[in-house]
Amino acid sequence: MTVTIEKALVVGTGLIGTSVALALRERGVAVYLSDVDARAVRLAGDLGAGREWTGEEADLALIAVPPHLVGERLADLQRRGAARVYTDVASVKVDPIADAERLGCDLSSYVPGHPLAGRERSGPSAARSDLFLGRPWAICPGAETAADAVRLTRELVSSCGARAVTVEAAEHDAAVALVSHAPHVVASAMAASLAGGDDVALGLSGQGLRDVTRIAAGDPLLWRRILAGNAQPVAGVLDRIAGDLAAAASALRSGDLDEVTDLLRRGVAGHGRIPGPRGAKAG
Amino acid sequence: MTVTIEKALVVGTGLIGTSVALALRERGVAVYLSDVDARAVRLAGDLGAGREWTGEEADLALIAVPPHLVGERLADLQRRGAARVYTDVASVKVDPIADAERLGCDLSSYVPGHPLAGRERSGPSAARSDLFLGRPWAICPGAETAADAVRLTRELVSSCGARAVTVEAAEHDAAVALVSHAPHVVASAMAASLAGGDDVALGLSGQGLRDVTRIAAGDPLLWRRILAGNAQPVAGVLDRIAGDLAAAASALRSGDLDEVTDLLRRGVAGHGRIPGPRGAKAG
Repeated sequence: MTVTIEKALVVGTGLIGTSVALALRERGVAVYLSDVDARAVRLAGDLGAGREWTGEEADLALIAVPPHLVGERLADLQRRGAARVYTDVASVKVDPIADAERLGCDLSSYVPGHPLAGRERSGPSAARSDLFLGRPWAICPGAETAADAVRLTRELVSSCGARAVTVEAAEHDAAVALVSHAPHVVASAMAASLAGGDDVALGLSGQGLRDVTRIAAGDPLLWRRILAGNAQPVAGVLDRIAGDLAAAASALRSGDLDEVTDLLRRGVAGHGRIPGPRGAKAG
Repeated sequence: MTVTIEKALVVGTGLIGTSVALALRERGVAVYLSDVDARAVRLAGDLGAGREWTGEEADLALIAVPPHLVGERLADLQRRGAARVYTDVASVKVDPIADAERLGCDLSSYVPGHPLAGRERSGPSAARSDLFLGRPWAICPGAETAADAVRLTRELVSSCGARAVTVEAAEHDAAVALVSHAPHVVASAMAASLAGGDDVALGLSGQGLRDVTRIAAGDPLLWRRILAGNAQPVAGVLDRIAGDLAAAASALRSGDLDEVTDLLRRGVAGHGRIPGPRGAKAG
């Protein structure tokens, strides 16, 4: 098997798929584009992301569709012999892998993946070739995954300027529940509490509030699907945070400021554990 | 009474006091500096914020000390005839006003104030003359406040490039509970949940998590005091958010995604109510 990606197929030309396609094009890779929405393919093509797929065999196929469609699309592409290696970008990993298994997919050529990058905007017009620069990109090979498939997927990751982080699928889902999915719900709950605030109160908003609530602007239907695919791990994190906030409210009412100070201190410690942007840690 | 600030006294040369002093100096105002910490005065003076106060009478005195010390400092300055108008910068307003009343202060020359600006760093060395540019600055005149005192305080606010927002003291405290104090505790609770996360999970962190938790890096002892001074309004907001998060966790567990989607939608709506940075609305 070749260890270089010369031809890539991108299935799903939304924000992520088109951004990967643009990054690969900058490296001189031939990129074929496919999407159920013909306009999205045309737009991505016009942006220089590649040309429409008409059945050519690729070295690697990137499946950039919503999590609940990954297994089905993988099975279909494998039946057509679309590529030698397949990877996806779904933000959860346990369910898509279970779908692939259930649908009888060849698991040796499938490397589950998840680039930790995104924007508030979506669609091909929001794509950028540098979207993944310095960002972590989880890959979750299983026991059956072929070493060459992993190698080609790692080449894809580094071609996008990202850093591969190898992690077991269930551990991945618990991790993103903590660092991505629960924070989204927390930001939403904070922002939701503003809906009833009066204009004078909102007029006193500062950068702190804007930062805490920024991600709450994300598409509710997209996030509904993401949360549905990782419900139990997210619920566990939210319960702990809800408990801390209820205890803080009760401590404030009773004047027990020590308990509140302890939460603030734990917050400083937890904040200090987040790696900086474009972190130098390699996976 | 003069309607122009020619001489100002800044009492408390921390981040806020020194930043105001620097802004006034750029306008050619004579600024006198005072602090219980002689080194802080010297440092502020070296930064060009003014010179040490030796009892000169000022047009306006800015009291930039912690909320629980405002009343006491106001009473002391008024006894010494330090200025004709007094304002403060405490992040809560009901308690300092009650302190001033209890200590027999002259309420006609006191205009309670609160610039909505800050940084994670503190002290005079973090001060910047443009810290307040375009930011809201609450002023809370009461029934006894003289119109000329309000006028001079508004001049101070506009000299700092901020926009004055007139608001009743209790309304102010409820507003900052919603847009500043509760968000700080929410960010802390989110960050605290990371303290026990493993390195792989933290390695998948992205900009979203960094934004949600940024303000959690603030000084716990400073925030303990701020929260203690506004305990009941903050507790009310936190209870609502804790309730939303507990309900979301329970809905995720039972697969009722409609309830979660509703919270996400309310989050989008609430987020949309936050004015942009350097907002154009005038108070």
